[in-house]
Amino acid sequence: MTDETTRPTTREPDHAIEPIFAERWSPRVFTGEAVPEAELLRMFEAARWSPSSYNSQPWRFLYALRGTPEWQTFFDLLVPGNQKWAEGTGALVFLVSSERMKVGDELKPSASHSLDAGAASLAFALQANRQGWHVHGMGGFDRERAPAALNVPEHHRVEAAYGVGRATPWAELSEEQRAKERPNGRRPITDFAFRGGFPQRQD
Amino acid sequence: MTDETTRPTTREPDHAIEPIFAERWSPRVFTGEAVPEAELLRMFEAARWSPSSYNSQPWRFLYALRGTPEWQTFFDLLVPGNQKWAEGTGALVFLVSSERMKVGDELKPSASHSLDAGAASLAFALQANRQGWHVHGMGGFDRERAPAALNVPEHHRVEAAYGVGRATPWAELSEEQRAKERPNGRRPITDFAFRGGFPQRQD
Repeated sequence: MTDETTRPTTREPDHAIEPIFAERWSPRVFTGEAVPEAELLRMFEAARWSPSSYNSQPWRFLYALRGTPEWQTFFDLLVPGNQKWAEGTGALVFLVSSERMKVGDELKPSASHSLDAGAASLAFALQANRQGWHVHGMGGFDRERAPAALNVPEHHRVEAAYGVGRATPWAELSEEQRAKERPNGRRPITDFAFRGGFPQRQD
Repeated sequence: MTDETTRPTTREPDHAIEPIFAERWSPRVFTGEAVPEAELLRMFEAARWSPSSYNSQPWRFLYALRGTPEWQTFFDLLVPGNQKWAEGTGALVFLVSSERMKVGDELKPSASHSLDAGAASLAFALQANRQGWHVHGMGGFDRERAPAALNVPEHHRVEAAYGVGRATPWAELSEEQRAKERPNGRRPITDFAFRGGFPQRQD
């Protein structure tokens, strides 16, 4: 996309990887375009095929489309700082994980329900990007009110919220917006990949 | 790859998605081929670009290569059921997350360190597949002994273990192995994607 090639990036992988990973990023300025439900379902379909402990598939995606009655309920759960930019997104999503999994015929606590939901969250975001949409994750939402507002059952954890939408093209951004609207960088893998165990320092 | 096309699969996406998601799967029969370190680093590089709360990048990958002194330490942490098949892998990896993140100059507890590590874990597995390797995740390891054995600092959580290796080609599997060695299925998205919040049932 022209927009992506003209937008400056700090994402130069140090090792050869599939383009899909460094291509994904989280804008903060969205056009206000609604996300068609069919487009959103493709993103969930990608999440569907993620790995999970005992194939327990603990992820649950709750969503509200812009312009529908549910939108306000979802939007009201976001902290004001996130509402500011999420207003321009076209769908709001809450990711919830089930804390229990079936092992044989028994329901047992899962030690990896959040981890497994996280895998699904990446598939969701990567697929969105390939469809021309962008996903922006949020930890800033009302964690006390969310379970009741979203009718979340017992033994489930509300993990994160996401705004999905169309990123505003670089050419249409103000100078002030441009300063924030470039994909951010990462620490090199030598900072987090250690052979044989952690080195002798706190990290 | 011929191997992948002749291996039966239960993975037929219901919605159009990038092939990378349904292609990934977790074998249980590995050839014993060692994973070159340079190959493994590419997998961590893919993980590197995952999203995380405040870009805190809480994932840590600890690894041992087959045939090196660290291998045995890592291998001994696996439960016997996993040791059985992990013996054929070419690298063992433990994923650890940092429970704290920097917000401004302050170290604060992160509500999403496991979720964020899970995102990184999917990138790692997807990239591995594209390189011709396979990743198999394990929750079954000695969670009490792992932190000391891997020199894991305080405020960190050992999330999961992974075997990385070369999947044995379908043609070389016994009938008994073939029964288990086909990519597993998933529930349809209607089982986990809900508009407006959870439906009125426990799930």
